[in-house]
Amino acid sequence: MALRGSLLRFFRTQLNNACLNQNRAHSVAILGAPFSKGQKRRGVEHGPKAIRDAGLVDRLSNLDYSVHDFGDLSFPRLDKDEHFMQVPFPRTVGRANQLLSTAVNSAVGAGHTCVMLGGDHSLAIGSVEGHSQQCPDLCLIWVDAHADINTPLTSPSGNLHGQSVAFLLKELQDKMPKVPGFSWMKPFLSSSDLVYIGLRDVDPGEHYILKDLGIQYFTMRDIDRMGIQRVMEVTLDHLLARKQRPIHLSFDIDSFDPSLAPATGTPVNGGLTYREGIYIAEEIHNTGLLSVMDLVEVNPVLGASSEAVEATAGLAVDVIASSLGQSREGANMAFQETPSPKQDTEQLRL
Amino acid sequence: MALRGSLLRFFRTQLNNACLNQNRAHSVAILGAPFSKGQKRRGVEHGPKAIRDAGLVDRLSNLDYSVHDFGDLSFPRLDKDEHFMQVPFPRTVGRANQLLSTAVNSAVGAGHTCVMLGGDHSLAIGSVEGHSQQCPDLCLIWVDAHADINTPLTSPSGNLHGQSVAFLLKELQDKMPKVPGFSWMKPFLSSSDLVYIGLRDVDPGEHYILKDLGIQYFTMRDIDRMGIQRVMEVTLDHLLARKQRPIHLSFDIDSFDPSLAPATGTPVNGGLTYREGIYIAEEIHNTGLLSVMDLVEVNPVLGASSEAVEATAGLAVDVIASSLGQSREGANMAFQETPSPKQDTEQLRL
Amino acid sequence: MALRGSLLRFFRTQLNNACLNQNRAHSVAILGAPFSKGQKRRGVEHGPKAIRDAGLVDRLSNLDYSVHDFGDLSFPRLDKDEHFMQVPFPRTVGRANQLLSTAVNSAVGAGHTCVMLGGDHSLAIGSVEGHSQQCPDLCLIWVDAHADINTPLTSPSGNLHGQSVAFLLKELQDKMPKVPGFSWMKPFLSSSDLVYIGLRDVDPGEHYILKDLGIQYFTMRDIDRMGIQRVMEVTLDHLLARKQRPIHLSFDIDSFDPSLAPATGTPVNGGLTYREGIYIAEEIHNTGLLSVMDLVEVNPVLGASSEAVEATAGLAVDVIASSLGQSREGANMAFQETPSPKQDTEQLRL
Repeated sequence: MALRGSLLRFFRTQLNNACLNQNRAHSVAILGAPFSKGQKRRGVEHGPKAIRDAGLVDRLSNLDYSVHDFGDLSFPRLDKDEHFMQVPFPRTVGRANQLLSTAVNSAVGAGHTCVMLGGDHSLAIGSVEGHSQQCPDLCLIWVDAHADINTPLTSPSGNLHGQSVAFLLKELQDKMPKVPGFSWMKPFLSSSDLVYIGLRDVDPGEHYILKDLGIQYFTMRDIDRMGIQRVMEVTLDHLLARKQRPIHLSFDIDSFDPSLAPATGTPVNGGLTYREGIYIAEEIHNTGLLSVMDLVEVNPVLGASSEAVEATAGLAVDVIASSLGQSREGANMAFQETPSPKQDTEQLRL
Repeated sequence: MALRGSLLRFFRTQLNNACLNQNRAHSVAILGAPFSKGQKRRGVEHGPKAIRDAGLVDRLSNLDYSVHDFGDLSFPRLDKDEHFMQVPFPRTVGRANQLLSTAVNSAVGAGHTCVMLGGDHSLAIGSVEGHSQQCPDLCLIWVDAHADINTPLTSPSGNLHGQSVAFLLKELQDKMPKVPGFSWMKPFLSSSDLVYIGLRDVDPGEHYILKDLGIQYFTMRDIDRMGIQRVMEVTLDHLLARKQRPIHLSFDIDSFDPSLAPATGTPVNGGLTYREGIYIAEEIHNTGLLSVMDLVEVNPVLGASSEAVEATAGLAVDVIASSLGQSREGANMAFQETPSPKQDTEQLRL
Repeated sequence: MALRGSLLRFFRTQLNNACLNQNRAHSVAILGAPFSKGQKRRGVEHGPKAIRDAGLVDRLSNLDYSVHDFGDLSFPRLDKDEHFMQVPFPRTVGRANQLLSTAVNSAVGAGHTCVMLGGDHSLAIGSVEGHSQQCPDLCLIWVDAHADINTPLTSPSGNLHGQSVAFLLKELQDKMPKVPGFSWMKPFLSSSDLVYIGLRDVDPGEHYILKDLGIQYFTMRDIDRMGIQRVMEVTLDHLLARKQRPIHLSFDIDSFDPSLAPATGTPVNGGLTYREGIYIAEEIHNTGLLSVMDLVEVNPVLGASSEAVEATAGLAVDVIASSLGQSREGANMAFQETPSPKQDTEQLRL
């Protein structure tokens, strides 16, 4: 038994080393997930294109990454997919997440930092699950106006993009009915490995679960009270104080104020400022532990104008770039010293 | 004498108990006050309709209140109402406030939490006065870009909506001329029972009075320095530390930044953010002591577009709902436990 | 030698007394500098007119200043001005700054607080240099999205409006090539006499220089972390703790968020809020040490609408007025006591 424990620790260490691989810092995989069946509004399947059109690849390349855009995943359309209780499209959502899980698993396994472009937030089920296959000790930071922790039994709408976290949590295993389409996965995350930031529209059942499981969450009111600097300090301390481990960042664009991110399906007033969102991203980058991130719920069909869509998609690019190292402080990688006129002349002669 | 003091304390205690009645938490009275003669711009008399149209009653009903909308008060048009000094419409304003005072007095006496929809801010004279008839030990939180504490002798404009507080304060009694139309009332509030939040356009005479009386006030600069969390802490400590007592919240929509509340008569740049306004409302609700609130100066005629008007009125509804318990943290009243699939099936069978 | 040192100290003291002259508080000189050759976008030469049209003179007169508007400087058009390295218009920029330096020197010498209206930010070279002729111990607060501290050898664009500070700093003297047009001046400022506020777009060479010289700077990230109150506290402590001395405030309108100041040439998302900008200005005013200020980079040609231009120019006026004493707390200069009705009647009789 003691030997087996040691072996497990050995393998886990190896896995962690892979997950915390420094090389990853220089290689980014982009996975588009044009999927919208986790909710009822059309258009969010065009999110990946909008975010790419806003210049994502160039921005990451400028940060000295080797960028590998794997294009969009292809999700099957199922002929027959009846409601399960009040949940629409259970098998379609389950299957899409299974495919996404495999893709994320591969990308992380190949040593990339992975950026998943949604699509709706139900995709986080497959993204986090695939990530956990490579990095079983990951922790999850969920930036969102909503907690997305309803079960099919508490959800007012039935939409699966509001239930993603419930599929991930071990503590909710016996509260979850067997939703068709999800037999390929088992919950794997402990509620202590999750922190929410930005909540401001929490359903009654969700509020009960958050309190019951003692999940660490920061509503906009908490940000008003504590400031974003302290919120990030507590967040990272909660998740990383005992040990360094890979971070999964699941970022819903509706965490931002609707004045900044209007092109999204469920906007809620009183959201993050631009600077708070960027600060969250910077702080996560600064840990050196970001392994996979989701950027979801950009819906180009819902913008009132092309400016509104471009603003929303541009914001998504800013968040991704800041999560991957773009800095408001600048970076001096290009300079070892301040060039002086004499040296410059010499250099020009070379 | 000692006996009389004891009796007074006894009656005051009874009154306070009525004012702090827990039942009030479940019954809200809405009083519309379509009045605009406290200032010179037309349109603010349509404020009550705009706020109702933005969904006030539904929002409060969703918070599990029994909502009693008493409709709009009817204010008489006086044939003859000459200027007093440079003050226009003194008798019209005085009479309207007398009627409003009676209505607020009745509503509070009947056990409702009272929401007064203005109309201009001169209406606070009658609203606070009527409230004080039931709850003589009330305290007043005045959220506004302006201090509204000019006397007829200091006011640059003469408008009574900029003088409301001067009518209420005992300390200013000998500084106030006898304004026609106000013989029905006497000042009753101590300057130590008042706190201002949000000031940023203070007239010279007002500044003198604020300093002279030692009134506790927080300008936008103070909010910039201290943060809204600390401002509310000091506000509530100042008013409630010695004893719990009923709160009158007089909220002028122009306390918000004009980008959020454009449809108002005297906008001033650099106002409250959405989140700061909601935080103020939440903190007041959390005391459990809110007894009457005014929401004033929504002027639908002054919005540049229907969107501007709807944004302003929607903001008013958000402030009122948050003052009455709408929470960004959610509430779990509907759940005693997380439903599990088995229980659910059983419940469905019942 | 000892005697000479004493004499120097004596003259320096005299100079300082002139620079810190209390009379200056009541006389403001406005200098328009319609100049745009420090960068490549046309229109910023119309900045002075836009700022004046937004009501600058009236606003300063209302603060009880004697306002002297010296109109716009006239800058020569040079027939021949070839690129120096990749720097365009070196002689034109140099000559304009020489003229501006003389004008600022005169205005400060005549006892005015001086307000320079740009034009692009290359004008700060002449403005600070002219100021230093009168007040050699000045300190410099640079509020800007950009550090403007490239040398011709590090600048990605070559534009001189991104190199102003490099011309001023003694520590960069041997890193600067001899740019034609600038032989009239020598660097005079120590890097410890400079603080930046608002940076968020810093070039690699600039980042190296900032770190290498140990310059005190606050990026937007620092403001997010510390809050603007603490940033100003550290700024003023850094510059003034050892001794009181004249402040030169060089304020680039692009320090503000583009949503507030859209009509400018190099906007960068995530800038100062209105309230942060006003707070900076108020804190500088409150030192009593402001001697010269620049307000630059308002470009009326780049606004998408007349509203956008007016908002940007109005913001410039607000910053200038707050730097010169406009207060959100009000001021009671007009009142020695609260007027009472009896006194008023008597006064009316006089």
